[in-house]
Amino acid sequence: MTRLFNDPSDFAEESLEGFVAAHRRWVRRVPGGVIRATPRVPGNVAVVVGGGSGHYPAFAGLVGQGMAHGAAVGNVFASPSAQQVHAVARAADSGGGVLLSFGNYAGDVLHFGQARQRLLDEGIPCEAVPVTDDVSSAPARDRDRRRGVAGDLAVFKVASAAADAGLPLAEVARLARLANDRTRSFGVAFDGCTLPGSTEPLFTVPAGRMAVGLGIHGEPGIGEQPMPTADELAELFVSTLLAELPPGVDTPRGQRVGVILSGLGSVKYEELFVVYRRVAQLLDRAGLEVVDPEVGELVTSFDMAGASLTLFWLTDELEPLWTAPADSPAHRKGSVPRVEGADDDEIPDLAQDVVPPASEESRASARTALAALAAVRDTVEEHAEELGRIDAVAGDGDHGIGMRRGAAGGLRAAEEAAARDAGAGTLLARAADAWADEAGGTSGALWGVALRSLAAVVGDEQRPSAQAVAAGVRAASEDVMRLGGAVVGDKTMVDVLVPFAETLSSRVEAGDALGAAWEAAAEAAGRAAEGTADLVPRMGRARPLAERSVGTPDAGAVSLALIVRAVRDVLPD
Amino acid sequence: MTRLFNDPSDFAEESLEGFVAAHRRWVRRVPGGVIRATPRVPGNVAVVVGGGSGHYPAFAGLVGQGMAHGAAVGNVFASPSAQQVHAVARAADSGGGVLLSFGNYAGDVLHFGQARQRLLDEGIPCEAVPVTDDVSSAPARDRDRRRGVAGDLAVFKVASAAADAGLPLAEVARLARLANDRTRSFGVAFDGCTLPGSTEPLFTVPAGRMAVGLGIHGEPGIGEQPMPTADELAELFVSTLLAELPPGVDTPRGQRVGVILSGLGSVKYEELFVVYRRVAQLLDRAGLEVVDPEVGELVTSFDMAGASLTLFWLTDELEPLWTAPADSPAHRKGSVPRVEGADDDEIPDLAQDVVPPASEESRASARTALAALAAVRDTVEEHAEELGRIDAVAGDGDHGIGMRRGAAGGLRAAEEAAARDAGAGTLLARAADAWADEAGGTSGALWGVALRSLAAVVGDEQRPSAQAVAAGVRAASEDVMRLGGAVVGDKTMVDVLVPFAETLSSRVEAGDALGAAWEAAAEAAGRAAEGTADLVPRMGRARPLAERSVGTPDAGAVSLALIVRAVRDVLPD
Repeated sequence: MTRLFNDPSDFAEESLEGFVAAHRRWVRRVPGGVIRATPRVPGNVAVVVGGGSGHYPAFAGLVGQGMAHGAAVGNVFASPSAQQVHAVARAADSGGGVLLSFGNYAGDVLHFGQARQRLLDEGIPCEAVPVTDDVSSAPARDRDRRRGVAGDLAVFKVASAAADAGLPLAEVARLARLANDRTRSFGVAFDGCTLPGSTEPLFTVPAGRMAVGLGIHGEPGIGEQPMPTADELAELFVSTLLAELPPGVDTPRGQRVGVILSGLGSVKYEELFVVYRRVAQLLDRAGLEVVDPEVGELVTSFDMAGASLTLFWLTDELEPLWTAPADSPAHRKGSVPRVEGADDDEIPDLAQDVVPPASEESRASARTALAALAAVRDTVEEHAEELGRIDAVAGDGDHGIGMRRGAAGGLRAAEEAAARDAGAGTLLARAADAWADEAGGTSGALWGVALRSLAAVVGDEQRPSAQAVAAGVRAASEDVMRLGGAVVGDKTMVDVLVPFAETLSSRVEAGDALGAAWEAAAEAAGRAAEGTADLVPRMGRARPLAERSVGTPDAGAVSLALIVRAVRDVLPD
Repeated sequence: MTRLFNDPSDFAEESLEGFVAAHRRWVRRVPGGVIRATPRVPGNVAVVVGGGSGHYPAFAGLVGQGMAHGAAVGNVFASPSAQQVHAVARAADSGGGVLLSFGNYAGDVLHFGQARQRLLDEGIPCEAVPVTDDVSSAPARDRDRRRGVAGDLAVFKVASAAADAGLPLAEVARLARLANDRTRSFGVAFDGCTLPGSTEPLFTVPAGRMAVGLGIHGEPGIGEQPMPTADELAELFVSTLLAELPPGVDTPRGQRVGVILSGLGSVKYEELFVVYRRVAQLLDRAGLEVVDPEVGELVTSFDMAGASLTLFWLTDELEPLWTAPADSPAHRKGSVPRVEGADDDEIPDLAQDVVPPASEESRASARTALAALAAVRDTVEEHAEELGRIDAVAGDGDHGIGMRRGAAGGLRAAEEAAARDAGAGTLLARAADAWADEAGGTSGALWGVALRSLAAVVGDEQRPSAQAVAAGVRAASEDVMRLGGAVVGDKTMVDVLVPFAETLSSRVEAGDALGAAWEAAAEAAGRAAEGTADLVPRMGRARPLAERSVGTPDAGAVSLALIVRAVRDVLPD
């Protein structure tokens, strides 16, 4: 279990602070995460990686010469927000564009995707490469749906070495995708981990059993079997990975591979070496040539008991990138050129921000928006436990906590913006970023997206008409579907957001005042939330279907219905 | 718990094999352990470290440029044998002498001490520096009795950097001792570890409690308290270590310190960073300047839950050695000069051995010695379980296992020597090395010493007279006391060995034949063994007195008495 913490809600932040204090030779703290301590090379691509906390050395431990230029650091097991990713990317950017890379999880895809869009909007070229190495998480024909695990190291290493070699963004992205296409991992677990402050493990594996293919956050695997010997595990690892050769490889014989044997936390070095002994024998027997193997803890989940094997099928252009010198806190190889650390002054101060001027009307509307956000905060606070209980049936039970953090953070940011005379658009945008930032997770991201879409339509100039609000809500609904990937019928908040947006638009078009139209839309939202109680598979990190209860609505749908209900009360009739 | 292994008795060997396979860039396998893969620099001192397996990165993980030149790798939690240390030192030696460094545990002190003596006998200058950094293991006035824990890293690093700088042996040893004098560690534990193949943990800590000062093998600590927060633990660490300033330091203010925050296995990186955050604040507040802190897993005990803080009080001459570049599998710093790996052929083949020519008489005596060793093996085999039970009362219960391995290994080596026409002296010397090698632990070392002393007196020339045998046993007795540090009355095998040797000598002097004299001496030995049943404190890793049973004899004393009894039967009357 995880034993050492102060206030559990400060864990990720305090851990990052201690990490930076211990590694000033390599990294500097910036808003959202860390960047290299060494000076930026003008014109080079910046590789920015990231993900939740609790997986060290992923992700902050992989920042340094020859490795990533920056890492966005999310809360425990939660994606960093788009705001964080964007801030780190801005700090790391040295004029050559940004390559974002991260494990392929719904929340990360969403936040990194949004950050990419924001960078592009600002004129900064940006490519995103999700890592999809976990063969257990989807069949080979669905490679794009696979999760990212220890293969992160191969993709990040290749991208970073290519960037440091001065290659242009398109080439860095091509090589990163090629590395991802040629990286396969397979993992097992023997026991779960307990998050800071929890009394119960996040998940468990029965004693004496091995969960095959279990994800690093406890995502369902593909089977369970009795505990093997070290040699048997090596045989399972190697035979599974040799059963799926990368494109264009007909036989393992004569191929060169990078190898990563990674422990998840409490399977320790000596045990990994015993397994690696057999892995090396088996790879040799299959005619493979191992290049720069890594045996240790590369992607962890606190003290989770488990391990994974990764094969990175090298090509002539990938091998020198895999073997290039690197010097990050947790991954070092060869000898990097000595450079002096960057002056602290060189690191841009992204906290510095300017509130754009707004019209008197928009500032008046901002007060209404602020009142609406206060009502949202109150209703979320009131229902947080209930939302957690609902979410625990089908999800991981943290929806109430995430919504509470998001709503409180959004209100706080809105208050600050209001105190500085922000218009309604800026106030909502600040609230959006803070909400996504503090809530974390997929629902945090989607609330951030929704509020940002609304903010963009509202703007800082005019008093928004009922038509403008309805259009903003429609835009929010479309963006949430586009970025979240869910459609009506998937039993998510989209099932509520779409009828809410449609009802609001049609009633406004029919001539209703905003208050009356919102009232009708909120009623439609309430009915739609009830409708999510039927059982269907869900995207993201869901429990196995067998464990889910029929008849419980989706927590995200319920919270949206509650929120639009609460907002009604602050709108003029 | 430790989950991944094959045959548990092969664990250490298979782990070392896998470690070497994964780290050919840094290390090469040699008999007894590993040495650097880079070419030796003629005339430089070789730093050879070592200890039991299960503590990775200690000790093999710390071999490489700027770090140790070699590591002797013992069995799980057991000292490497003198034979192993000697073999690694011979392989690492490049003409500048050898510095041995290791944690201050009874078995290690014994084996490294013997290896040093053997190197000196061969004309190789050698110094030994035990590490004594654990402030909980003895009061400040008894620094020499303190155990070695994560402070190993500071001492090894300084010695190795000094050796690589080309300093002479005396200077390398002086700096290593200075580093040890200025290194203090303090550790806590939250839970024990389970050794490969065991079903029960080696020790436990009650849930929700913290054992203060508990050793890395479960050695008794100095107290127990409720589980602290991360900040509270940092405060305990820092206040304890600042309460014992090194010689010549009156105030921490203005001092420069190396800092090592080490997790023992399942306390993970993010938790350590949260603790380090506060440690850094507190050290800063105390006016200390932190230089190159290390936060991670530096000395582990499988998946034991615990952590330690080390302060290494730098001086102007120590600081550049602490910050010098290093490149070992588990500890890397800065950029080392690039060198090509050594050719495998360059590594001396220590397995190659020559049996010295022996007289016909000595070869005849060798047959008697072989028969005696067979009788010893048989009696140990017969009584192994009983010896284990006796040892479990006051020790760790492994005496029977160790003796069984030692006696079997000794006999096997003797048979091989006999098959190659060895004389009695060579046969006994081979048996001695094999015994110590395979038995491990303190009693293995002492049996190795005893048989080697006997072997030296017996030689390969003459048929040994009764006088020569008695003199050999007397020499063995003296060497065991000298190296083991125990005297009569300490309730160890010395309580039996001394009266046995004295009786044998006096009866031979009085004119008895060897058989009759041995008979009388064996009877004295049996009586003496019974006498060890009274309770007194013992050296080494003993349980707290309160847990020991009065009235149980010492297992080592009992086994010695059984063995001399068995040998009687093969001696002529």
